[in-house]
Amino acid sequence: MSITIKDVARVANVSPSTVSRVISNNSRISEETKKRVKKAMKQLGYHPNFQARSLVVKSTETVGIVMPFSASTVLQDPFFPEVIRGISVKAKENRYGMYLSTGGSEDEIFEEVTRVVQGRRVDGLILLYSRTDDKVMKYLLDVGFPFTVIGRPYVGAERITFVDNDNIYITKQVTDYLIQLGHSKIAFVGIDMDFVLSIDRIEGYKQALHEAGIEFREDYIIQKSYLKGEKSAITAFLTSPDAPTALVVTDDFLALELFSHLEALNIRIPEDISIISFNNYFMAEHSKPLLTSVDIDIFQLGYEAANCLIEKIKNPESLPKRITIPAKMIERKSCSSFL
Amino acid sequence: MSITIKDVARVANVSPSTVSRVISNNSRISEETKKRVKKAMKQLGYHPNFQARSLVVKSTETVGIVMPFSASTVLQDPFFPEVIRGISVKAKENRYGMYLSTGGSEDEIFEEVTRVVQGRRVDGLILLYSRTDDKVMKYLLDVGFPFTVIGRPYVGAERITFVDNDNIYITKQVTDYLIQLGHSKIAFVGIDMDFVLSIDRIEGYKQALHEAGIEFREDYIIQKSYLKGEKSAITAFLTSPDAPTALVVTDDFLALELFSHLEALNIRIPEDISIISFNNYFMAEHSKPLLTSVDIDIFQLGYEAANCLIEKIKNPESLPKRITIPAKMIERKSCSSFL
Repeated sequence: MSITIKDVARVANVSPSTVSRVISNNSRISEETKKRVKKAMKQLGYHPNFQARSLVVKSTETVGIVMPFSASTVLQDPFFPEVIRGISVKAKENRYGMYLSTGGSEDEIFEEVTRVVQGRRVDGLILLYSRTDDKVMKYLLDVGFPFTVIGRPYVGAERITFVDNDNIYITKQVTDYLIQLGHSKIAFVGIDMDFVLSIDRIEGYKQALHEAGIEFREDYIIQKSYLKGEKSAITAFLTSPDAPTALVVTDDFLALELFSHLEALNIRIPEDISIISFNNYFMAEHSKPLLTSVDIDIFQLGYEAANCLIEKIKNPESLPKRITIPAKMIERKSCSSFL
Repeated sequence: MSITIKDVARVANVSPSTVSRVISNNSRISEETKKRVKKAMKQLGYHPNFQARSLVVKSTETVGIVMPFSASTVLQDPFFPEVIRGISVKAKENRYGMYLSTGGSEDEIFEEVTRVVQGRRVDGLILLYSRTDDKVMKYLLDVGFPFTVIGRPYVGAERITFVDNDNIYITKQVTDYLIQLGHSKIAFVGIDMDFVLSIDRIEGYKQALHEAGIEFREDYIIQKSYLKGEKSAITAFLTSPDAPTALVVTDDFLALELFSHLEALNIRIPEDISIISFNNYFMAEHSKPLLTSVDIDIFQLGYEAANCLIEKIKNPESLPKRITIPAKMIERKSCSSFL
């Protein structure tokens, strides 16, 4: 019941092999014939068998998306649906599909990526993160498979096309904002030094402190893993005599968890402690108090990464480049001056 | 530099055609030989070329996910990442990949689905929604392509495997809860009658009213499209002398938008108006007041839909079935008694 090349050939009044050549975009076929064959294909609702055709034109018309760790935890973070949303719009503009690559650990991700690449399941890959020690990135560079990265590659950034915010600059701005409100005991919460993102943000934070003549304190850097551990530890930190009066938090999700925690401790926001965060998720506009947050334009990060990847797929000789997506602090009600 | 069938053949000490037969799972090859070839493949890190192999074994080891309308709007709703999360866990257990199908309109979705099916880009499809008039579902039934649905198919439910909550029952429970709090002016907000979900929920809502002897009022059914329109219309509805004292809202997202709207009108929740909603998103635990919501177990909806689909792919003769995922009201602070 499905339509074959022979049906198309009959309607277009050409040989089946001519139809095949049109499908594989053979340059020896005249424009006139191409037009006629394509018209027949459309008329009959014929779609070339995707897998057979992929072998010929070596294209899957699919972009692969590589997520950090398992999709099962990652998709709980609103960053990922939003970045996929950006990718999807660009993919759709170019009639590309999307393949989601998942793995439960670094090793599983690596194994899955090699399988996807060697099996040519996709035409190229977008890495949604950048780690300091990234096997996947090294592998993709080695085999010369098209890819782009969201985030700054830790090594080889000159040879890799990537899309990122200016994380040093925006974090410096955010810290400056708290300093200008009179804070000097400012902690940075939710760090994961395996990711280049954290390294860059810490750098911006340090620059702001340095310029203001405030000493950097290691004990004011709170790891993400620490927050996920014993509640008593974070309680001790927030209630110690030397507790910070302001927090820079790596994402709104964590910030809202801190909101709940602080409420239970009867510590008021922003009267007792100021909080500023990143990502500007929907809930930042619906929390009490409303959360001051940095809009990093997640959608655009995804859109541009897909744009660069498709460009690279279509023209493998295109040069590596860095695209910077502007980030902007959205001032709401979670920070106040410290007198 | 990539490893070929010839390399595997050499290491396993068999002919290349034997390796091909092992890859295509030919039953004429002895278990002993299969084992030896597989060991050599593993040792060399050989992955059969996916597209070439698909032609032989007719499998892509990929499940396709069909979203309603464009991914660009849909992914803003936390339902979709969470349901994909459920699918991803099951897919991963079976070493399946995921392909996201997107379309900007009903026609575009239909076109994309036919392309995916005819091109055999995936082994089966999961529809994340059920419409009253669904061309896609009819098409998939016609061509006999494996698929499962999240939601109740409007027609042909006996011939289709689907996963759903008992929407009539849970909505009746929710409405009963408000009636027991003393409310009789209860509106249902966020309806879209194109989706079977809305039809079932309205049915449960009506049953509760009917049992309690409360008359059903058409003007208490507020369409989703209405909420997206003029703010003045919804303001008029909420402030009229005949305004409802309680709202059942189709999802937490809408509910929180109503929270903001009501706050601007100085209508207090729950003192002046009670609100109960569906989906139990993360933000329901962080709103003020905390939002009473129905946990429909979105993750499990996705997980079971993937489970049924993979079962169907592996055994095309498996019988159509309905799986019901339990839903549960999570009582928080957004409802109070009406005296």
